[in-house]
Amino acid sequence: MVRRNKRAVILVSGGLDSCVAGTIAKCEGYEIYALTIDYGQRHAKEIEAAANVAKALRAKEHKTVQVDLSALGGSALTDPDIEVPTDREAGEMEGEIPVTYVPARNTVFLSIALGYAETIEAQAVFIGANAVDYSGYPDCRPEYIEKFDELAALATKQGVEGKPTKVHAPLIEWTKGRIVQEGLNLKAPIKFTWSCYLGGDKQCGRCDSCRLRLKGFQEAGVEDPVPYE
Amino acid sequence: MVRRNKRAVILVSGGLDSCVAGTIAKCEGYEIYALTIDYGQRHAKEIEAAANVAKALRAKEHKTVQVDLSALGGSALTDPDIEVPTDREAGEMEGEIPVTYVPARNTVFLSIALGYAETIEAQAVFIGANAVDYSGYPDCRPEYIEKFDELAALATKQGVEGKPTKVHAPLIEWTKGRIVQEGLNLKAPIKFTWSCYLGGDKQCGRCDSCRLRLKGFQEAGVEDPVPYE
Repeated sequence: MVRRNKRAVILVSGGLDSCVAGTIAKCEGYEIYALTIDYGQRHAKEIEAAANVAKALRAKEHKTVQVDLSALGGSALTDPDIEVPTDREAGEMEGEIPVTYVPARNTVFLSIALGYAETIEAQAVFIGANAVDYSGYPDCRPEYIEKFDELAALATKQGVEGKPTKVHAPLIEWTKGRIVQEGLNLKAPIKFTWSCYLGGDKQCGRCDSCRLRLKGFQEAGVEDPVPYE
Repeated sequence: MVRRNKRAVILVSGGLDSCVAGTIAKCEGYEIYALTIDYGQRHAKEIEAAANVAKALRAKEHKTVQVDLSALGGSALTDPDIEVPTDREAGEMEGEIPVTYVPARNTVFLSIALGYAETIEAQAVFIGANAVDYSGYPDCRPEYIEKFDELAALATKQGVEGKPTKVHAPLIEWTKGRIVQEGLNLKAPIKFTWSCYLGGDKQCGRCDSCRLRLKGFQEAGVEDPVPYE
């Protein structure tokens, strides 16, 4: 009998969180199938980082699926008419849904990941969703992830056959500091990641995403290996 | 006070079922926002039909979003290495998941529709999913649609604010005959639809999709306005 390794689809964005989520899957013994969604972001920097992270995780495959969410508009990350905010006060980052929110993004990402998982008969999908620092994003909350997991059990052939693909969001309740710390402990390939919303040569250090990342490294008491302007 | 019309996103595939679902939404007084997902089908015929149906429904907008599900493989509809079956016996169409099944298709479609609904603040998403003749497709069952509706309530800004977008699948329990009959009663623009899985000048009449469609017209006792080979 051929014993097949357990397989996981990892949503690899190129950012810190998905890099750590993928590393956790790797450490749990999953064979890695990396999936990057190219959804009309403003720059290609993240896609490049995703390819490097997938390679560092020794992914069996790395697929990039294009879905043109910019056709729907409504977010600073895909709509050139909405400005990406920089230099906001820390307090302004909390409690509201920011303009960088992409409508139904995680639902779209998880649904494509589920399709991939079904095709390769993967037991798991890993996503780096995190509720702590993104409290304004409805699709980053634990109750959302749990509901998607219930949906996955109904949505696919494997689900119908009693072997549903399980959705894992291991970082969901972690602070950014803990994400950095656990990532370092597990030797996550953080140096290949990219978090900046802008598309410069170095990370800007001023957009919400850079600020969150920097806060994480500060909390962990270590220096970010990726350079800033 | 400006009173805004209620809005619905309709997943318009170009086929019969979504045409009837959209007509029902129209008759219920919704302003129509048509959405077509171009997911790497083998031919452009359906996309063209979708545009004509959207126009006939007097859609306020018609968006086409590309998502390259063919990158994932695993279906005869997107993978050129898998043959589309024709001339199967009626019995063979039941009880199994056919090779024309696209992994997680309705989950991907509904998630993009949800993103569109969030952007335009639509109260509803309509999908022509049908459980009766597609009993083999896990994502065409009523329990699946109900679960996606629960997910929608958690996934979006509107949901968080207590005004979730509701998912409607009005044809879910109808036979194909009833779909044709109700479509005719409501003057659905059926003549613009296209169901054939192949990409000929006329519908082939032999693939599973054509056969189901023909069965519907036969049950309804009327002739299909769209020509066959």
